[in-house]
Amino acid sequence: MERVDEFNEFRAKMNEKILAADNRAIKRFFGVDTLTYETGALDRKTKEMLGLSASMVLRCDDCIIYHLLQCKELGVTDPELYDIFSVALVVGGSIVVPHLRRAVAALEEWHEKQGGGSGGGMDDGAQGSLG
Amino acid sequence: MERVDEFNEFRAKMNEKILAADNRAIKRFFGVDTLTYETGALDRKTKEMLGLSASMVLRCDDCIIYHLLQCKELGVTDPELYDIFSVALVVGGSIVVPHLRRAVAALEEWHEKQGGGSGGGMDDGAQGSLG
Amino acid sequence: MERVDEFNEFRAKMNEKILAADNRAIKRFFGVDTLTYETGALDRKTKEMLGLSASMVLRCDDCIIYHLLQCKELGVTDPELYDIFSVALVVGGSIVVPHLRRAVAALEEWHEKQGGGSGGGMDDGAQGSLG
Amino acid sequence: MERVDEFNEFRAKMNEKILAADNRAIKRFFGVDTLTYETGALDRKTKEMLGLSASMVLRCDDCIIYHLLQCKELGVTDPELYDIFSVALVVGGSIVVPHLRRAVAALEEWHEKQGGGSGGGMDDGAQGSLG
Amino acid sequence: MERVDEFNEFRAKMNEKILAADNRAIKRFFGVDTLTYETGALDRKTKEMLGLSASMVLRCDDCIIYHLLQCKELGVTDPELYDIFSVALVVGGSIVVPHLRRAVAALEEWHEKQGGGSGGGMDDGAQGSLG
Amino acid sequence: MERVDEFNEFRAKMNEKILAADNRAIKRFFGVDTLTYETGALDRKTKEMLGLSASMVLRCDDCIIYHLLQCKELGVTDPELYDIFSVALVVGGSIVVPHLRRAVAALEEWHEKQGGGSGGGMDDGAQGSLG
Repeated sequence: MERVDEFNEFRAKMNEKILAADNRAIKRFFGVDTLTYETGALDRKTKEMLGLSASMVLRCDDCIIYHLLQCKELGVTDPELYDIFSVALVVGGSIVVPHLRRAVAALEEWHEKQGGGSGGGMDDGAQGSLG
Repeated sequence: MERVDEFNEFRAKMNEKILAADNRAIKRFFGVDTLTYETGALDRKTKEMLGLSASMVLRCDDCIIYHLLQCKELGVTDPELYDIFSVALVVGGSIVVPHLRRAVAALEEWHEKQGGGSGGGMDDGAQGSLG
Repeated sequence: MERVDEFNEFRAKMNEKILAADNRAIKRFFGVDTLTYETGALDRKTKEMLGLSASMVLRCDDCIIYHLLQCKELGVTDPELYDIFSVALVVGGSIVVPHLRRAVAALEEWHEKQGGGSGGGMDDGAQGSLG
Repeated sequence: MERVDEFNEFRAKMNEKILAADNRAIKRFFGVDTLTYETGALDRKTKEMLGLSASMVLRCDDCIIYHLLQCKELGVTDPELYDIFSVALVVGGSIVVPHLRRAVAALEEWHEKQGGGSGGGMDDGAQGSLG
Repeated sequence: MERVDEFNEFRAKMNEKILAADNRAIKRFFGVDTLTYETGALDRKTKEMLGLSASMVLRCDDCIIYHLLQCKELGVTDPELYDIFSVALVVGGSIVVPHLRRAVAALEEWHEKQGGGSGGGMDDGAQGSLG
Repeated sequence: MERVDEFNEFRAKMNEKILAADNRAIKRFFGVDTLTYETGALDRKTKEMLGLSASMVLRCDDCIIYHLLQCKELGVTDPELYDIFSVALVVGGSIVVPHLRRAVAALEEWHEKQGGGSGGGMDDGAQGSLG
């Protein structure tokens, strides 16, 4: 559970500090960022999937973990996640692979936290409710 | 219609030449690329949307046009496209904007080609069949 | 004058279309973008210089032209511009060079438009007022 | 103090080893890098700010820490730093956020090292002398 | 012949202007750049091949054309070029493809200029002398 | 020896998990990746050198370590490696430097593992056999 928890804690702590600095453009950017993933023409789940593929090709581990967890909370199954991974891998090339490895490690942590085993890091696709 | 047609023609011509060079790794890569967007756990439409968001944050105009056209052929509505654009814009920042402009220009070309006007580059979301 | 004028015209036309699509996140992002370059702890001139160096290392020609013109309107001298170019070149490497060439071409266009010759693309540093 | 000190130590040790390898192009590159930030048409402080914004959009944590520390030593205030952060964030998008978090953590370390508290990671802007 | 000649002409003209601006760091960077590709532990041919693969994954068309022409002048055969392309494609992913298309178009121009036809953009590998 | 061993172990473990997920596109991509570095018109050694320069400019530490180790196993000498580093540094700019530092640290680990000291991280160029 370590890596994911550590990430979430650092993320929350630093976001608070950043917002406390009270820079208007930064604060508004954070607001737009939140707004972007709200249901619009596309639902949140699809948007988080788009955020995940974008984060993978840009090779941002923290962004990948964040969107991966959101996807799981919104019911994206493991086979669906691997399809997202495949698009990111083919678009972004083998330099995406190290990030894919860490994404799969984070996915495993998520499964362990859910209390269920998950041999190959795959669930049965029955995960449909919000966390 | 110019930009999109020109792109499609150059794309087809050069792909043929590349494959004619008969480099095994390149040919297989092209095969994997095709396979990636076929229906799996996710359907083709969702995969093309993922390909579009990935292409936008990587700022590849040709890739953007390609996936944009695929999205339209697979029934992605304009408001849905703009939602994809918004995720790419927020993830990738203002350097995505010039590519967004060219994406919207390509979208307009697509609409004109369909024979319908489209003032603000928006359709009514009723576009559901395969082109 | 061609490249710069063409850029400005396309930019204005497409921005209008993008905003007309009325996607909330995109519209707000455009708002944040404008806000970012307003005088805060740093003045507009310094911020545009920062925007220019960021655009150069990210190799976005349209962004470079935009911030370059803003810099000139705000009184950044040519020797100062070349100092910005040097930082971007050393940070970003030789792949920045093609963009540097096009930046210098745009700078020349700006000088020609001002009605003054500028042999080597350099002014005397006396350019201090807004346009 | 940990992260910043560790970075500085590793940086110094490895730079020494790299230069000891005696590759002419690499040695000269290091020379050009040093030269680039010396006062020219722009002063060192402005150049370090440009180096910081460039490093942030390219998402290089070590480069960010380096330029951040240089900025502080040269008297850049925290509100000015946050203005630099805002430009980098808007130009580079939300993938810059994880690096912004680590930049703010490094800034905190710097303040602690100076012996002064700094609740929200902000000073009063009165920091004008060379470290 | 158009694209390649146009590139070479613009490149030469702008390089001259850039150097005329007399910015010390930029001039020295250009010097280091030249030095880098001179024979050292590796010969020029291998270094140009490395420059080509680096340029392709960074998706810089002008850099690709430049190193491609250098490779051909130094005797890199077409099958060898395609092997370089394959490494760049697999490392960098499908976003490299549009640049690969333009690289193959430039290679064709080079062959036409040599006076020989080259249907599929391939020579027989016998091209060993300096242009 | 730590960093390199840890990398190799994590790499092997996660690759296994990724392949176990049985996503066809991902599995085929891994196959193409392997194929790409096999001897073709260019030999494996040259291809690994190309993979290294590409990985350095894309700033992927894991990819750099992997190709660096492959290069050493295939007999690339340290002076040759530094020539590769120099091309990557000049093409990619100073943001490559932190990755260069870590590459040199990995190279040192490799030398230590071989049982020989290597003061400045340089061997005599006599390393010609496959590990």
